[in-house]
Amino acid sequence: MFEQNPIFIPGPTNIPDRLRHAMNVQSSDHRSPDFVETLAPLLQDCKKVFGTQSGEVVLFPSSGTGGWEAAICNTLSPGDKVLIARYGMFSHRWIDMCQRHGLDVQIIECSWGSGAPADEFQRALSADTQHEIKAVLVTHNETATGVKSDIGAVREAMDSSAHPALLLVDCVSSLASMPFEMDDWGVDIAVSGSQKGFMLVTGMAILGVSQKALAAMENAELSRTFFDFRGMMAANAQGGFPYTPPLQLIYGLRESLKMLFEEGLDNVYARHFRLAEGVRQAVKAWGLDLCAQSPELHSHTVSAIYVPKGFDSNKLTDHAFSKYGVSFGIGLGEMYGKAFRIGHLGSLTDTMVLSGLATIEMAMADLDYPIELGEGVRAAQSYFRKTAA
Amino acid sequence: MFEQNPIFIPGPTNIPDRLRHAMNVQSSDHRSPDFVETLAPLLQDCKKVFGTQSGEVVLFPSSGTGGWEAAICNTLSPGDKVLIARYGMFSHRWIDMCQRHGLDVQIIECSWGSGAPADEFQRALSADTQHEIKAVLVTHNETATGVKSDIGAVREAMDSSAHPALLLVDCVSSLASMPFEMDDWGVDIAVSGSQKGFMLVTGMAILGVSQKALAAMENAELSRTFFDFRGMMAANAQGGFPYTPPLQLIYGLRESLKMLFEEGLDNVYARHFRLAEGVRQAVKAWGLDLCAQSPELHSHTVSAIYVPKGFDSNKLTDHAFSKYGVSFGIGLGEMYGKAFRIGHLGSLTDTMVLSGLATIEMAMADLDYPIELGEGVRAAQSYFRKTAA
Amino acid sequence: MFEQNPIFIPGPTNIPDRLRHAMNVQSSDHRSPDFVETLAPLLQDCKKVFGTQSGEVVLFPSSGTGGWEAAICNTLSPGDKVLIARYGMFSHRWIDMCQRHGLDVQIIECSWGSGAPADEFQRALSADTQHEIKAVLVTHNETATGVKSDIGAVREAMDSSAHPALLLVDCVSSLASMPFEMDDWGVDIAVSGSQKGFMLVTGMAILGVSQKALAAMENAELSRTFFDFRGMMAANAQGGFPYTPPLQLIYGLRESLKMLFEEGLDNVYARHFRLAEGVRQAVKAWGLDLCAQSPELHSHTVSAIYVPKGFDSNKLTDHAFSKYGVSFGIGLGEMYGKAFRIGHLGSLTDTMVLSGLATIEMAMADLDYPIELGEGVRAAQSYFRKTAA
Amino acid sequence: MFEQNPIFIPGPTNIPDRLRHAMNVQSSDHRSPDFVETLAPLLQDCKKVFGTQSGEVVLFPSSGTGGWEAAICNTLSPGDKVLIARYGMFSHRWIDMCQRHGLDVQIIECSWGSGAPADEFQRALSADTQHEIKAVLVTHNETATGVKSDIGAVREAMDSSAHPALLLVDCVSSLASMPFEMDDWGVDIAVSGSQKGFMLVTGMAILGVSQKALAAMENAELSRTFFDFRGMMAANAQGGFPYTPPLQLIYGLRESLKMLFEEGLDNVYARHFRLAEGVRQAVKAWGLDLCAQSPELHSHTVSAIYVPKGFDSNKLTDHAFSKYGVSFGIGLGEMYGKAFRIGHLGSLTDTMVLSGLATIEMAMADLDYPIELGEGVRAAQSYFRKTAA
Repeated sequence: MFEQNPIFIPGPTNIPDRLRHAMNVQSSDHRSPDFVETLAPLLQDCKKVFGTQSGEVVLFPSSGTGGWEAAICNTLSPGDKVLIARYGMFSHRWIDMCQRHGLDVQIIECSWGSGAPADEFQRALSADTQHEIKAVLVTHNETATGVKSDIGAVREAMDSSAHPALLLVDCVSSLASMPFEMDDWGVDIAVSGSQKGFMLVTGMAILGVSQKALAAMENAELSRTFFDFRGMMAANAQGGFPYTPPLQLIYGLRESLKMLFEEGLDNVYARHFRLAEGVRQAVKAWGLDLCAQSPELHSHTVSAIYVPKGFDSNKLTDHAFSKYGVSFGIGLGEMYGKAFRIGHLGSLTDTMVLSGLATIEMAMADLDYPIELGEGVRAAQSYFRKTAA
Repeated sequence: MFEQNPIFIPGPTNIPDRLRHAMNVQSSDHRSPDFVETLAPLLQDCKKVFGTQSGEVVLFPSSGTGGWEAAICNTLSPGDKVLIARYGMFSHRWIDMCQRHGLDVQIIECSWGSGAPADEFQRALSADTQHEIKAVLVTHNETATGVKSDIGAVREAMDSSAHPALLLVDCVSSLASMPFEMDDWGVDIAVSGSQKGFMLVTGMAILGVSQKALAAMENAELSRTFFDFRGMMAANAQGGFPYTPPLQLIYGLRESLKMLFEEGLDNVYARHFRLAEGVRQAVKAWGLDLCAQSPELHSHTVSAIYVPKGFDSNKLTDHAFSKYGVSFGIGLGEMYGKAFRIGHLGSLTDTMVLSGLATIEMAMADLDYPIELGEGVRAAQSYFRKTAA
Repeated sequence: MFEQNPIFIPGPTNIPDRLRHAMNVQSSDHRSPDFVETLAPLLQDCKKVFGTQSGEVVLFPSSGTGGWEAAICNTLSPGDKVLIARYGMFSHRWIDMCQRHGLDVQIIECSWGSGAPADEFQRALSADTQHEIKAVLVTHNETATGVKSDIGAVREAMDSSAHPALLLVDCVSSLASMPFEMDDWGVDIAVSGSQKGFMLVTGMAILGVSQKALAAMENAELSRTFFDFRGMMAANAQGGFPYTPPLQLIYGLRESLKMLFEEGLDNVYARHFRLAEGVRQAVKAWGLDLCAQSPELHSHTVSAIYVPKGFDSNKLTDHAFSKYGVSFGIGLGEMYGKAFRIGHLGSLTDTMVLSGLATIEMAMADLDYPIELGEGVRAAQSYFRKTAA
Repeated sequence: MFEQNPIFIPGPTNIPDRLRHAMNVQSSDHRSPDFVETLAPLLQDCKKVFGTQSGEVVLFPSSGTGGWEAAICNTLSPGDKVLIARYGMFSHRWIDMCQRHGLDVQIIECSWGSGAPADEFQRALSADTQHEIKAVLVTHNETATGVKSDIGAVREAMDSSAHPALLLVDCVSSLASMPFEMDDWGVDIAVSGSQKGFMLVTGMAILGVSQKALAAMENAELSRTFFDFRGMMAANAQGGFPYTPPLQLIYGLRESLKMLFEEGLDNVYARHFRLAEGVRQAVKAWGLDLCAQSPELHSHTVSAIYVPKGFDSNKLTDHAFSKYGVSFGIGLGEMYGKAFRIGHLGSLTDTMVLSGLATIEMAMADLDYPIELGEGVRAAQSYFRKTAA
């Protein structure tokens, strides 16, 4: 029964039937003309979502984590210095990956709930007069804390110190849900995946790559073969992949892009903002606090919500799952036990969001949270009905 | 986007993935041993849902309406007198069908919102000393008004007057959702369909037939060929159908029965009651009235709800669909414009029901109904969380 | 494993993925605007396949047999005389149905393997100076014998005797596979189904109805309710059905029509002819005989093939199914045990047809048929490769 | 139309409906108990297919190529010497990957069409008295030439020289189709993928890992993060993945294993052998030669077939695809233009194989190959019918 309930984890997201059908295809020959004719326009169409005209797009059968690895291995060399701020679980993991690849990671420690510290980046970059920093790594949407960062501000920080470092951005949980302007923001590599805004199953990393990144690639000495841009791009230029491509995901991505363009990217973004705002109205009505420290940091795709002192957020998510069959995101890292998360991205409607709010309210009431049943729903209803198209 | 919202019409119902898969099969030969081996146990299993051991089950590629036609054509002759009470749209339509078949229909007019009038049946049957009445027709669950009738009481009425008439029952929107005891209630034909409690697509009438009905069949002179029990049962006995069977629905029904038995029929009934009760708590909180005139008439599968005086229920359902993409049942017949319906049968969870309540509240608020946003949801939440397993 | 083998029964046919997806949709509200907007153009598009501009199309959740019943019940009255020739199992069954409806059936007995006897029809109609014959019933494609009849010639026979009878045609296994010209041939009702040329699952009768048939309907006194054109057409005019419509089949039919029009009806017909001809080349190479008595009678959708004297065709089809997992049509009626059938209609390719021929050859060799392994395949290959686009 | 033709590339393979359904699931929470309960038994069951009791199984969202990378990165260090023979495209690519990872690759050049040279391995290993060779890499089934190698003989060569090197085996196109005995053969890492014998979509590397390999892992210094066994195994032990798992493939693999075990692994292997042998009978009847140089090298999953001198195999495969809509494998590497391949692995029946043979015969005849139409089919039919169960 429960499998018809929507899920409220911040990805993988609820897959619309249209995409389930698109992915549910019989095997076909990836060396046939049909595949060739599919791949090239698909890569072009992806560029629109990244907001790039000058960049390239590459796909790997992998996950977002594989995309991170591809981003650093294709542009950096062992011992290279990179600058990154830690303000959540996913920035933390990217740091860890850099260290395991033998990079010299200059970390700016931030409180969880804050975003990318443009000003501190600027100080660090200005101090780096020898340009030892080869790349700045930023998590656009920190899924653990529900924080979106201002990538444009990071770009300004880099420009104001005239620093030539690459700008590598994790947009796994923001792309195709929140505005992303790769060219305008001067992003060199943007890393996303299939299972979030694209509403597909997990299994494909989707990267936007600037010409500057491609130039850096020529001298990058980190080891890569499976994730090598060169092999992938050379094969793509011939209409193929350097190994067996994930056909079903590729056909799924083609249909996903169609859906996004039919709705209109701006409408997609507006819908995500609106659903997020409805959730925030509910949080406010419950008297709870978001992890995100200020309104401009509020993510449009996921809200991380502190449970009241003395409560264990894991018990809440467990209870919601076991009693009501609804999945919410657990607190990760520093938020473990302290916060739960409501994912509100992908294929979602007012009705679906309200069902999540109504369910978590029941779970909170069951566990004696000091909230009033129905108040969050009411606040979201009130917002939704006033702002619906 | 909207197609992921649950629907709240009283059938067809939300189809679980497991049944979508079961019905999504390639064509195969209906004259092959595989089909033969499927059909016989399937018919046996259906008997459990009807609550009969002595009866038989027949399936027609058709709808519930086709099932009604099969019920009367196989047991009655032109000019036969039948007794039936009109208390909603579906009893009304069955009356119409009887009249069009040239039956002599003795109608007991009841107010819409009431159920089968056992006492009036008893009077009519007792008065029929010549036993001219050949059949009593009853709608178990009147989908238009959300009223369930007491079939056992009708049987008692018939027994107490020692009347030999057949008892034909429409259980289209009750079977597999509410208890049905064909043998105990002495039902001669029970008519159901694939798209309600069985959670399948529309396209198959499912009938339980008593031995008494089969005996009556021998003398029945109403014309039937497509809906003839004799041809169907003879073919079934050989493992086949007298014409091409709806394979996908038959495989779907096999899986549906598996699901019902895995959950346990008693649990299925309890779940339906509980979800219905949650909806009724919401209706009460809104200060609205059910069409069903008293608690023992409350249907477990659909609630018909009067809109306040001066409001048009059609505008409400239209608005909910066009603005929020959620379907509710419109008012039918006498309830046209005066009531809307919430279907709560089939594959449904607390979470799904709450999403429907939250949505119709927004729609009511948009149209200035004198209800308070969130109050119905809160009432249902409160009930659900206390009664959840 | 075996379920990936194509089937070679003359319907239901191999369902292409595109139609499986189209039918695999979640329940939605059949009273919603979406359905209304689907139904009207769908009915219009069906007309193109029937070859009618002046006629109407009606759909019933049912099978082809239900379509036959609808055709006669809506146009005839008890005791009406109808003229029909028996030359196969399906014409035989239609005769039986007419008799059971109390019609006065004038039967022209023909040998199985022949087609509709236009000359004998003419004699009978000319002799009927009182115009007692109210309808001529013809099976366009006799699925049991693989015989297609010349409906145009029947029309000429009727015209030459200036007879006003209705012309009712069973085109269940020909429509959407072979040319059908309802207007040109003056067909009054054409009866088809979803599971043949339309490549869908079984469950919908699809009828074309002329204005003349609609006029006759006003005086027709045979009983009908479920299959009543009037109720259906009145509801259709409002965008709905008089009872719950088979949504999945309706969405499937919409996509099926798209596929047929994309390929082009003339190309669809040419493909069917070509595949049929390939099969016939194989039959010739085997030294076997078709049931169809002359080339102009050869069906484009099914070939019925006599087994050599002393062999039992049932053993052949059983063997092919149990050993190789491939379904062929058994011999029906007079052909029982004497002939097997290869269905070659719907979504089929050269490759699929060859797989059927290769399999039945193995089965024949296993049972010591006097055929040479590979010869039928070779003949079909030879024809296919010369005639492929 | 063409998408219903089977494909005859050596993977991805024809996906049975049962697995398409298993993979076609809605998103669910990979941190939920359901996933935890799925993963552990799944990994256990995989061991049976690898033929290991003492080893472990790891899965990566990736392709077989990613599996190769995982195998070497987790066990070797930069500059390590590895021994490998080149006898086809896939051994060639693995060599290339090793070189790009900075390994010191000792290559034994063999003619394409031969298999792993156990005797030459023995000589090389015996000569390596300092045990500088850290690993022997072998392609079990060389997909480019249709050659299966004797892994047991390689193990004997290693044992007879008492060499401690690891034995890494690519069994991408053999596992779950041909016998594989990881423990008996002393294989340290066996690399496979989802899209061959497992009959799933592309997107998951599946590896068997011995305890000896795990011990080597501790000192391996090649860089890995995404493909790190340690992170994967640690997360697996907690019931999860170190990043988002490919849920649909994991559920698909669970069902695939069920299917394999239901048929019985020995029956699966016997079926593959039998289908392969039927294809080889056809090749012989055509008078063509296999690339595999001797019968004991014949692969059970793919046959690479030389075209006659003066013909271009690419034209053949192009023609078969464009005219008949059937995909065969092209010649790779040294076989480019010289050979085509028939994949005969995964979910296949006699009927499906015959359809491929009949089609390629037409294509060869169209291009004036000196073969006789129907002869290959006849030879395969003859073999199939004698050997069918």
